[in-house]
Amino acid sequence: MTTQPSKQLDTFPNPAPERDYTIRMRIPEFTCLCPKTGQPDFATFHLEYVPDQACVELKSLKLYMWSFRDEGHFHEKVTNDILQDLLKATNPRFMRLTGVFNVRGGIDTSIIAEYRDPAWTPPTPVQLP
Amino acid sequence: MTTQPSKQLDTFPNPAPERDYTIRMRIPEFTCLCPKTGQPDFATFHLEYVPDQACVELKSLKLYMWSFRDEGHFHEKVTNDILQDLLKATNPRFMRLTGVFNVRGGIDTSIIAEYRDPAWTPPTPVQLP
Amino acid sequence: MTTQPSKQLDTFPNPAPERDYTIRMRIPEFTCLCPKTGQPDFATFHLEYVPDQACVELKSLKLYMWSFRDEGHFHEKVTNDILQDLLKATNPRFMRLTGVFNVRGGIDTSIIAEYRDPAWTPPTPVQLP
Amino acid sequence: MTTQPSKQLDTFPNPAPERDYTIRMRIPEFTCLCPKTGQPDFATFHLEYVPDQACVELKSLKLYMWSFRDEGHFHEKVTNDILQDLLKATNPRFMRLTGVFNVRGGIDTSIIAEYRDPAWTPPTPVQLP
Amino acid sequence: MTTQPSKQLDTFPNPAPERDYTIRMRIPEFTCLCPKTGQPDFATFHLEYVPDQACVELKSLKLYMWSFRDEGHFHEKVTNDILQDLLKATNPRFMRLTGVFNVRGGIDTSIIAEYRDPAWTPPTPVQLP
Amino acid sequence: MTTQPSKQLDTFPNPAPERDYTIRMRIPEFTCLCPKTGQPDFATFHLEYVPDQACVELKSLKLYMWSFRDEGHFHEKVTNDILQDLLKATNPRFMRLTGVFNVRGGIDTSIIAEYRDPAWTPPTPVQLP
Amino acid sequence: MTTQPSKQLDTFPNPAPERDYTIRMRIPEFTCLCPKTGQPDFATFHLEYVPDQACVELKSLKLYMWSFRDEGHFHEKVTNDILQDLLKATNPRFMRLTGVFNVRGGIDTSIIAEYRDPAWTPPTPVQLP
Amino acid sequence: MTTQPSKQLDTFPNPAPERDYTIRMRIPEFTCLCPKTGQPDFATFHLEYVPDQACVELKSLKLYMWSFRDEGHFHEKVTNDILQDLLKATNPRFMRLTGVFNVRGGIDTSIIAEYRDPAWTPPTPVQLP
Amino acid sequence: MTTQPSKQLDTFPNPAPERDYTIRMRIPEFTCLCPKTGQPDFATFHLEYVPDQACVELKSLKLYMWSFRDEGHFHEKVTNDILQDLLKATNPRFMRLTGVFNVRGGIDTSIIAEYRDPAWTPPTPVQLP
Amino acid sequence: MTTQPSKQLDTFPNPAPERDYTIRMRIPEFTCLCPKTGQPDFATFHLEYVPDQACVELKSLKLYMWSFRDEGHFHEKVTNDILQDLLKATNPRFMRLTGVFNVRGGIDTSIIAEYRDPAWTPPTPVQLP
Ligand SMILES: [Ca+2]
Ligand SMILES: [Ca+2]
Ligand SMILES: [Ca+2]
Ligand SMILES: [Ca+2]
Ligand SMILES: [Ca+2]
Ligand SMILES: [Ca+2]
Ligand SMILES: [Ca+2]
Ligand SMILES: [Ca+2]
Ligand SMILES: [Ca+2]
Ligand SMILES: [Ca+2]
Ligand SMILES: [Ca+2]
Ligand SMILES: [Ca+2]
Ligand SMILES: [Ca+2]
Ligand SMILES: [Ca+2]
Ligand SMILES: [Ca+2]
Ligand SMILES: [Ca+2]
Repeated sequence: MTTQPSKQLDTFPNPAPERDYTIRMRIPEFTCLCPKTGQPDFATFHLEYVPDQACVELKSLKLYMWSFRDEGHFHEKVTNDILQDLLKATNPRFMRLTGVFNVRGGIDTSIIAEYRDPAWTPPTPVQLP
Repeated sequence: MTTQPSKQLDTFPNPAPERDYTIRMRIPEFTCLCPKTGQPDFATFHLEYVPDQACVELKSLKLYMWSFRDEGHFHEKVTNDILQDLLKATNPRFMRLTGVFNVRGGIDTSIIAEYRDPAWTPPTPVQLP
Repeated sequence: MTTQPSKQLDTFPNPAPERDYTIRMRIPEFTCLCPKTGQPDFATFHLEYVPDQACVELKSLKLYMWSFRDEGHFHEKVTNDILQDLLKATNPRFMRLTGVFNVRGGIDTSIIAEYRDPAWTPPTPVQLP
Repeated sequence: MTTQPSKQLDTFPNPAPERDYTIRMRIPEFTCLCPKTGQPDFATFHLEYVPDQACVELKSLKLYMWSFRDEGHFHEKVTNDILQDLLKATNPRFMRLTGVFNVRGGIDTSIIAEYRDPAWTPPTPVQLP
Repeated sequence: MTTQPSKQLDTFPNPAPERDYTIRMRIPEFTCLCPKTGQPDFATFHLEYVPDQACVELKSLKLYMWSFRDEGHFHEKVTNDILQDLLKATNPRFMRLTGVFNVRGGIDTSIIAEYRDPAWTPPTPVQLP
Repeated sequence: MTTQPSKQLDTFPNPAPERDYTIRMRIPEFTCLCPKTGQPDFATFHLEYVPDQACVELKSLKLYMWSFRDEGHFHEKVTNDILQDLLKATNPRFMRLTGVFNVRGGIDTSIIAEYRDPAWTPPTPVQLP
Repeated sequence: MTTQPSKQLDTFPNPAPERDYTIRMRIPEFTCLCPKTGQPDFATFHLEYVPDQACVELKSLKLYMWSFRDEGHFHEKVTNDILQDLLKATNPRFMRLTGVFNVRGGIDTSIIAEYRDPAWTPPTPVQLP
Repeated sequence: MTTQPSKQLDTFPNPAPERDYTIRMRIPEFTCLCPKTGQPDFATFHLEYVPDQACVELKSLKLYMWSFRDEGHFHEKVTNDILQDLLKATNPRFMRLTGVFNVRGGIDTSIIAEYRDPAWTPPTPVQLP
Repeated sequence: MTTQPSKQLDTFPNPAPERDYTIRMRIPEFTCLCPKTGQPDFATFHLEYVPDQACVELKSLKLYMWSFRDEGHFHEKVTNDILQDLLKATNPRFMRLTGVFNVRGGIDTSIIAEYRDPAWTPPTPVQLP
Repeated sequence: MTTQPSKQLDTFPNPAPERDYTIRMRIPEFTCLCPKTGQPDFATFHLEYVPDQACVELKSLKLYMWSFRDEGHFHEKVTNDILQDLLKATNPRFMRLTGVFNVRGGIDTSIIAEYRDPAWTPPTPVQLP
């Protein structure tokens, strides 16, 4: 099993495509470079999605996140690009990605992007007493 | 009374099938093996359900959870499989299972899966002052 | 005044049957026996109800709760049975009973059961600024 | 100015009857006697109301609350009785009274009673950003 | 620039009358006298409003609040009077004033009064993910 | 790269104009002068918006905020002016700006202003279990 | 293995008598009877000790605590009696027992008792940075 | 690199034997079996030590902790045994091991054991302002 | 001014060598590689010291921390090495460095190393009321 | 009374020189310029001292802090310089100044400097039960 950063997002078949369910992942170890200054940037990503036919594989997700380590990226674009890559790999019913970036220039930035399959209806929340 | 891990989920007749009520269980002592590396994984499960004719018996649930100790399982599949086994054993009106897994590869993962009997209508919440 | 455990739930006439109002009680000192092992179980009960013609008398409720001390009971059944006894004694407009049981076999259990008189409409909440 | 406990609730004309507004009072210094044992009981009352033509006067409310000090009262009745006295004195558009009683017999009790003038419509909440 | 207590509330033209926006002010340094005993009362006021053509000027608001220092006032009336003065000075689209008074006679009192221009519709809240 | 305060707000093309997403920024290092007394004022700004074709560039936003350092401004106007400049620069689908100003004259002030493109519909919130 | 309440405290040989070390136990499920009224009392015990030649066995401690369930005891005496029984069973270098009793008569009571072997010197605390 | 549970604790030369410094590790994923019932036990260990010539290697510590997964152990002994193994492997100047075990029989247990080289003097704490 | 990672730690003359004072720095953006697997590691460093003739310059400290980004390092060694470099650069009266590393293999690790000039006496703490 | 930034620190005679007492001030509105980049820096200062014959006058302290607004300063030096100016102006028995600077380059910095009159003995803290 190789352990190298990689842009390839592996998936595995959703083990329960017959139901809507939620997968939530907290990814606190993201770092890339500022495309203007070349200096390191740091962020925590929060991913939550309802899979359709495919789930993202944990280790490949880790290697994928690692692959940004030596690349220059703007906050807004990298968050949307990661979402786009995850959408292409998994084609989910719903996906939300939140990037919480460390302060730069005295300013804290968060980016929150969602995809919702037009054909998908979110489950009505059941609130038990 | 034998005390061995077991895949058998015992039930007992719901003592109050005439009403909808909620059973909530927190199960913090779950461990299985990573199917890729063979190393131990740890999770806390949260189960909540509205029983129909059967309730899951506490001790058998404990032995059932114990039965995963030496097995390899992916997070997404094992959560859905446990839900499926609990559904088969109890055939409830509603059931939600949440698996909160310990960090692996620097990533925290939670899986939340629900079943709702199509013929069942959730009770309208009563909010007293 | 005798002070003995008792299954009898005394009531007194609702002093204000002309209006819906809420009675909330927290009962942290419940103990019974496990019907399988004979060992003590412990729970905290939360009762809330809208009385109709009768209210449960505080001291008799305490003696009633005491009456389970030497009896064997399953969590699900005892919660529903106590609700049933309280319903029979007070015939309320609405009642909710929550049993929060101490951990057994590494598992925390809570049971939440409600009764709602079909002829009763909950008051529309008034939210003052 | 005499300072004696008194069942008389003085009022003064609502200075702004042209609008709905909220008056909230927290009254933590209530004590009466248990009608069964004669021992002291303690409670905190929370009053909130929308006045119509009259407001309850603060000092007379204090003396009124004091008047229960040597009287025996059940929790449910005294809460409804105080509400009734306040309704008779002020005839408000809306009133809610909550009595939070100290633990007795290992049981905490709260009583929450409301009055709403049938001809009155609560203001639609305005939620500013 | 004189610095004297004053009942005059100065305003300045709303710099953005073309949009609804919220102004919130916390005014913790209010004191007046009890009209019955002559003793000092203390309160914190919370003001929030949507201006129309005029905004209240901060320093004049401070001097206005100061002007109550040696006057006797009941809680309910002074809150409504201050609201009325602010309405007359600014003629806003919406205004809410909350007075949180220190405990007197063992009782905490809050008064919350609102004005809403009948011709004004509150903005629909936008909740971003 | 010059590093001078500047009223110019640079933008870059929205990297994902095909979807609605949220950008949130916390800007705690704002200071200007009181237009009446010439003394320093301090504030924290919170910006959140849904971009359309343009995003505000982080460094230019920092230099823009710096440009107020030696200018006199009223709280209400400067908040609306900054919003207006940001709207002109980015022409977003939705934007909310909150200014939290330090206490002056014993009074805390916050200003919250929003813009919503009339042709834009906010996304329906998706609440996953 | 019988499972009955028992006054017998089993011990096992201290597996590391060559060093001072601390054993801490939290025992929240204690109940006995009030010797005056016969009604149930509830407490949580905290035990901490430095064993010498013997350690108290967990299951026998549970059964021992259970043995008070049907006995009448005063708070002060039962705490000291339990300490005495534990001392007799284990003859430790140091032992501290704290009993935190539920409110009775509106009064919360805790009892804290210690034993220290006169020949024993407590270890000098090492505080690492 | 094999990945199997192992009782062997690898070490590496202390990279800074010329100074006293602290190594702290939190090890939340420990599980073994109850030697009486064969059922799983769970614990979190806290290790802190001042190394002398050797440090414990992280991965071997993980495999060592894993090695208890299928073994029966009492709380007191396993904590002292692990300390003993760590002492033998690293021969430190000071070491403290704390085992926090999940509740069993309604009782929480923690074991805290220390070793201090008689020839070693702890550093005097420096408290900076 | 170049902006490249660099092992050079610049200093400037301590502006107040006549007194003992404390400099505290929190450095949350440290990342290096695991020397065994080549995968990224993350840590937060806490530095506190009493300077003698030299202080570490902030920007050079940032570039120094950046210089570990592509290097393999063990936790214990890198913490002591950084301390050693800082000691060599600043030769302080006292210095403490704490490295808090992200969980690896289910284990959290912190390393705390200090240097104290033998000729230096820490100031006696003054605790004002 | 002029209102201009000023380096002059006015004092007034200590009204109680016969006793040691503490004066604490929180000064959150400090800003100066980075001497390297010319960009604004922000800090909160905490001052605590035991006056001898003189106390620092509040308004002059505010104008003094304002005087740094357009000056370039390093964190370590400006904190020690402010302490020095305060010492010269008030000649206290004890003084501690803490500067908490906003994050720069991903690093948080605090500087804590003290002066203690060699002839002064700090009061022994009195801890009331
Ligand atoms: Ca739920
Ligand atoms: Ca409720
Ligand atoms: Ca309310
Ligand atoms: Ca009280
Ligand atoms: Ca509001
Ligand atoms: Ca006040
Ligand atoms: Ca929002
Ligand atoms: Ca969500
Ligand atoms: Ca209890
Ligand atoms: Ca202790
Ligand atoms: Ca320690
Ligand atoms: Ca665990
Ligand atoms: Ca320290
Ligand atoms: Ca981080
Ligand atoms: Ca202090
Ligand atoms: Ca600030």
